[in-house]
Amino acid sequence: MNLRKYFIGLLFFASFLSLIAQPNYRVEVKIPDIPGYKTLKCDFHSHTVFSDGTVWPTFRIEEAWRDGLDAIAITDHIEYQPHKDYIPTNHNAAYEIGKNLAKELGLILIQGSEITRDMPPGHLNAIFITDANALVKDTWKEAIKAAVDQGGLVFWNHPGWRGQQPDGVSRWYDEHTYLYENKLITGIEVVNSIEYYPAVFEWCLEKNLAILGNSDIHNPINFDYGKNRRPITLVFATDRTSEGIKEAIINRGTAVFYDGKIYGEEKYLKPLFNESIHFATTDVNNVGRGTANIKVTNNSDIDFELRLAGTDEVIRFPEFIKLLAGTTMMFPIRARKDNTDVNKKYSVVYAVENLITGADKNLKVPLEFNVKVTPKK
Amino acid sequence: MNLRKYFIGLLFFASFLSLIAQPNYRVEVKIPDIPGYKTLKCDFHSHTVFSDGTVWPTFRIEEAWRDGLDAIAITDHIEYQPHKDYIPTNHNAAYEIGKNLAKELGLILIQGSEITRDMPPGHLNAIFITDANALVKDTWKEAIKAAVDQGGLVFWNHPGWRGQQPDGVSRWYDEHTYLYENKLITGIEVVNSIEYYPAVFEWCLEKNLAILGNSDIHNPINFDYGKNRRPITLVFATDRTSEGIKEAIINRGTAVFYDGKIYGEEKYLKPLFNESIHFATTDVNNVGRGTANIKVTNNSDIDFELRLAGTDEVIRFPEFIKLLAGTTMMFPIRARKDNTDVNKKYSVVYAVENLITGADKNLKVPLEFNVKVTPKK
Amino acid sequence: MNLRKYFIGLLFFASFLSLIAQPNYRVEVKIPDIPGYKTLKCDFHSHTVFSDGTVWPTFRIEEAWRDGLDAIAITDHIEYQPHKDYIPTNHNAAYEIGKNLAKELGLILIQGSEITRDMPPGHLNAIFITDANALVKDTWKEAIKAAVDQGGLVFWNHPGWRGQQPDGVSRWYDEHTYLYENKLITGIEVVNSIEYYPAVFEWCLEKNLAILGNSDIHNPINFDYGKNRRPITLVFATDRTSEGIKEAIINRGTAVFYDGKIYGEEKYLKPLFNESIHFATTDVNNVGRGTANIKVTNNSDIDFELRLAGTDEVIRFPEFIKLLAGTTMMFPIRARKDNTDVNKKYSVVYAVENLITGADKNLKVPLEFNVKVTPKK
Amino acid sequence: MNLRKYFIGLLFFASFLSLIAQPNYRVEVKIPDIPGYKTLKCDFHSHTVFSDGTVWPTFRIEEAWRDGLDAIAITDHIEYQPHKDYIPTNHNAAYEIGKNLAKELGLILIQGSEITRDMPPGHLNAIFITDANALVKDTWKEAIKAAVDQGGLVFWNHPGWRGQQPDGVSRWYDEHTYLYENKLITGIEVVNSIEYYPAVFEWCLEKNLAILGNSDIHNPINFDYGKNRRPITLVFATDRTSEGIKEAIINRGTAVFYDGKIYGEEKYLKPLFNESIHFATTDVNNVGRGTANIKVTNNSDIDFELRLAGTDEVIRFPEFIKLLAGTTMMFPIRARKDNTDVNKKYSVVYAVENLITGADKNLKVPLEFNVKVTPKK
Repeated sequence: MNLRKYFIGLLFFASFLSLIAQPNYRVEVKIPDIPGYKTLKCDFHSHTVFSDGTVWPTFRIEEAWRDGLDAIAITDHIEYQPHKDYIPTNHNAAYEIGKNLAKELGLILIQGSEITRDMPPGHLNAIFITDANALVKDTWKEAIKAAVDQGGLVFWNHPGWRGQQPDGVSRWYDEHTYLYENKLITGIEVVNSIEYYPAVFEWCLEKNLAILGNSDIHNPINFDYGKNRRPITLVFATDRTSEGIKEAIINRGTAVFYDGKIYGEEKYLKPLFNESIHFATTDVNNVGRGTANIKVTNNSDIDFELRLAGTDEVIRFPEFIKLLAGTTMMFPIRARKDNTDVNKKYSVVYAVENLITGADKNLKVPLEFNVKVTPKK
Repeated sequence: MNLRKYFIGLLFFASFLSLIAQPNYRVEVKIPDIPGYKTLKCDFHSHTVFSDGTVWPTFRIEEAWRDGLDAIAITDHIEYQPHKDYIPTNHNAAYEIGKNLAKELGLILIQGSEITRDMPPGHLNAIFITDANALVKDTWKEAIKAAVDQGGLVFWNHPGWRGQQPDGVSRWYDEHTYLYENKLITGIEVVNSIEYYPAVFEWCLEKNLAILGNSDIHNPINFDYGKNRRPITLVFATDRTSEGIKEAIINRGTAVFYDGKIYGEEKYLKPLFNESIHFATTDVNNVGRGTANIKVTNNSDIDFELRLAGTDEVIRFPEFIKLLAGTTMMFPIRARKDNTDVNKKYSVVYAVENLITGADKNLKVPLEFNVKVTPKK
Repeated sequence: MNLRKYFIGLLFFASFLSLIAQPNYRVEVKIPDIPGYKTLKCDFHSHTVFSDGTVWPTFRIEEAWRDGLDAIAITDHIEYQPHKDYIPTNHNAAYEIGKNLAKELGLILIQGSEITRDMPPGHLNAIFITDANALVKDTWKEAIKAAVDQGGLVFWNHPGWRGQQPDGVSRWYDEHTYLYENKLITGIEVVNSIEYYPAVFEWCLEKNLAILGNSDIHNPINFDYGKNRRPITLVFATDRTSEGIKEAIINRGTAVFYDGKIYGEEKYLKPLFNESIHFATTDVNNVGRGTANIKVTNNSDIDFELRLAGTDEVIRFPEFIKLLAGTTMMFPIRARKDNTDVNKKYSVVYAVENLITGADKNLKVPLEFNVKVTPKK
Repeated sequence: MNLRKYFIGLLFFASFLSLIAQPNYRVEVKIPDIPGYKTLKCDFHSHTVFSDGTVWPTFRIEEAWRDGLDAIAITDHIEYQPHKDYIPTNHNAAYEIGKNLAKELGLILIQGSEITRDMPPGHLNAIFITDANALVKDTWKEAIKAAVDQGGLVFWNHPGWRGQQPDGVSRWYDEHTYLYENKLITGIEVVNSIEYYPAVFEWCLEKNLAILGNSDIHNPINFDYGKNRRPITLVFATDRTSEGIKEAIINRGTAVFYDGKIYGEEKYLKPLFNESIHFATTDVNNVGRGTANIKVTNNSDIDFELRLAGTDEVIRFPEFIKLLAGTTMMFPIRARKDNTDVNKKYSVVYAVENLITGADKNLKVPLEFNVKVTPKK
């Protein structure tokens, strides 16, 4: 059964939903907005049967909607069409097929294509384009120009991919200098599928390129990622629209969330931490070496891992605090000695080990407590 | 290792938390407050090694805190002390041992005991007592009087338990009339562990007794309940305090949440539904038999199951809608005919099958939509 | 990335597998062979992008392999080609594309098609065909003849589907009598996706038609079934080959496994139970009303639910025993009275509630114990 | 309810088991026996309310039975009795209370105690003792002598525990030399709860001491370990009896399974690997650079992680192979060049990264294939 014409009726008008464990339900990704911006969850790199993927475009859209995303781009290969014996090449097909469903669901579908060339310059995604067929060109320069001429943004995919860099090292070639100096690329994938390229993160910070992390998914997400979440590009946008996303990428207002870590600039990661965490306890009243418990709640989907930066001679703060997603926890503060007599405001600095602001740098956050300890008699 | 004196230091000052899947973290039960009341999650019936349970009192408290509860009572048997060869009887011990930890964690610990007599009147819990040892009496009347004299509230446990009613039928005896008429009992367990007693629910509604649902747990919760949640008494209290809970029970401001269902009065269940559910779409603009999708979000931990009560001749609404906990879903509305021409406000009544307001009654909720359908040309 | 030419190298030669939760691994369905037969796990009804499905044929095959199946048929609609604006109709394409991967993985791929007509006769699957394009015919009679002429077996799909039976009732029409009397159909779906048709089960038993249960899946399996398993046709075959399966279906050597239940004939279900369950304890030596524990192990993936049929006056056997998949459990046997004096072999009959041998019938199994009880002094 | 006298009746004679997700069921730990030995799964270090644990002894036993263990020791502290205000000290109580249930379930309960002294020598467990009260002595030498005089075996617990070694370094003191030279200790914990001590592993190998890994659990296992398995001492015994275990420990026939890794001697780990893994494919017939897939099944609960040791110039074998517990997988073998012409038996050495035979050593296993490659024309 399941002819599409009957499908919607069946799905919602019958009672069988109760039997199905994972139907058409969306679960939000709980990463808070930050002051001045909406935090949009996006995946700008995915495939369908219209190049070498295994799924139909509407599936990609419903899957992304269920996964709590705000926007995706389907970016089938221009130059690689392994299904062409069965599916005539039409680089606009995936977008055409998917756009109505995306609109119904409120998911932002961005038209895209993957310009798929030998390294250098390798593979580059063009998104926010309007006619993918115009990207069929003899040379990569022409193809990129065709994308940019349509108002597209171009970014460099998986620069350290072993398919084009057998030793796994990301290399910046003259071709990339050409693209960069002519303002033809806007960003680079710092994370692609399950790979993270630390050197590329540094390039983005130095050269002011947008930091991107995408799934590059060919199969259904959970076929390849199991219970893990796909990489997501967090876009800090003033509007939840296609235009808002485009503008944010141009302004480098992005970060990457993958494998429990967020890669991005301090100016975005600091408010993200602050909006995620709430301290119920800020005042400590102890006697001697007795402990006071600090209660803290993490409303986000991110497990934050905090490590104490430095040591206090008088008061003992935890060396390591793990603030699990969606939970409230308690951690103890106590004086080192029974004769301690203190009454002051502490600003204790922790490094958030999974909020990463550079190839070897973590976000530092000050936790503030009013600590009053009276000596034990 | 794990001598208690080293424990706290180790637990929080070392980094090993990262290796532990389920440490000392609390996950809230997401059932919203309702106008005028806090919705407190309580379990008024549990056991420890101080009668026939298998856990130490502090474990009960930490377990309840992790489980997102606001309050528990430990209610060891007065008359059944199978561990007495190893543990001298002291009916106040569990409360004494647990109260400091409860205070630290912000969990409300209510002192209690289970008066454990043959049926009738069977087993009765006394909670909000101050000296459990005073309940050691020759007769059940004396024991209950001793509890009430301390300001305790008494409720009847598992009235249909096969240990005392081999056929599983709940029976109201003269002894219960005595307790009821002398205002010695305040409520009855409508749910005990995995048993639900529909007749008892009716008794509570008729006689204005508090509706209670408790775990009666002897082992760790997940040893007996696996991944399921224990039964919880929802208490609609003006304050999150022991006094607030007591007053709410006296005022019959309770409901029971178990196995995905809530048993209670309409005046509490209706606002609970309304505070849990948010409709993002209220206006429908269709052409002919085209569908419009309604987007709705369920912020609670309750899966709501809605069944259409009645049929509309013109517009087709879904027969069954399952609003899964913590998700957003879409469901369709459409006209039955292509020549439909309608522009009016609909108030469509659904029965919420898992919100139960009587032995055979469900909460009815009107869903309201502005429906505009223009004929298809 | 993930151009197919690089894919295999990457997948296996790099270390990234350790990061992926659900890669290319097969988990067997643990349903034992029975004396004389291999128990093959099959799904004879599935779709791809070549009709109204959302996945590529190779995905169906890898998915089935991972799911522990032995054989599948891809059965795209002949008469329903909603993707034809993008994919030129070629009813043999899915089989052509999939057959090499199936061979590599050792999965049996059976060529098939769904003859998709109005009711009556409704939709019928033809499997074991060799040229699906030959089934493009004006009438259903011609289409079925074309299938049978190729050596195909034809079965009737989802006879109670609300898309063709709005009241959900399965109806046998003259057209089905025609098919049956002319030996043109070999079986009927007793289970299709999440629907079970009890009346159809009876038809199969009366008319000696093969009992079939299939997924009719259009999306990835877990998109629609979540964590549940798809319906599976169990085929009791002498060989694990395409021919072995065909012969078994012709001989009605099938059963259906879905939603924890197995539907089939006693001659298959009885040995299935016996091969799944091992009793470690068969001798009971009790004193008075003391209990003896029976240890029993269930090596299958089936949870068996046993209910006592009848009562013994002397010895008390459990009313209900749930033998969970993959576990060992203990259940008690004891005398009803302390003065019991018994020494005999008991054959206690249980109904296995989830092994279903007719619309209202369950498999009965005798459990045998040597019971010796001496009176308590 | 749940008075023990009613409990067994209720549990098994009523139908409520079907509602409980995790009742009294045992799931075996699938680690195979090896030639000449049964592989017993044991935990020789656990606590109850009779020292500083939070559970009753029968709970420990039922929990261990459910967890698939063969044997446990309850080893409450002799010198640390924080519950003594409520529970009079009786060091034999836990064993007395638990032994009957253990016998019924077929779990081997070994009597034990933890001699709890300052470092050096720190904490030592005495197991296979018969009277724990006799271990109450002024000095640790006397206490250990009392244990050994009863036929007990003594082992050293958590030598690197920060409670006694604030820097986490395991130190061997003169006191340990005394114990070792006088043959008073038989083994050391290489793993205690979530800590692994690599230096101690080396000590055990050098000094021929038994390698032990225990949970040291005070709470219910899953309260502290979540979904992870506790550390287990694997005992390679000729019999599944208390005596068999004792003899095996004396003979150093042990290994430790924790966190997916096994620590032990090659003579045990090599057959463990061989009994766990089955290669369905051993013959490779390729043309040119075409791949052949090797099918391999892992019947154990251990995920094996294999890394290629060395490189072959002609044939490309996977660098990394992860053999997931309970699955079948495929991995590819292929020639490096299209003109390859080879016909020989390969014995390819892999290091099993999670089978650890020394502080820095892994088990090496040769995988054997008959490889025939003919040049591609």
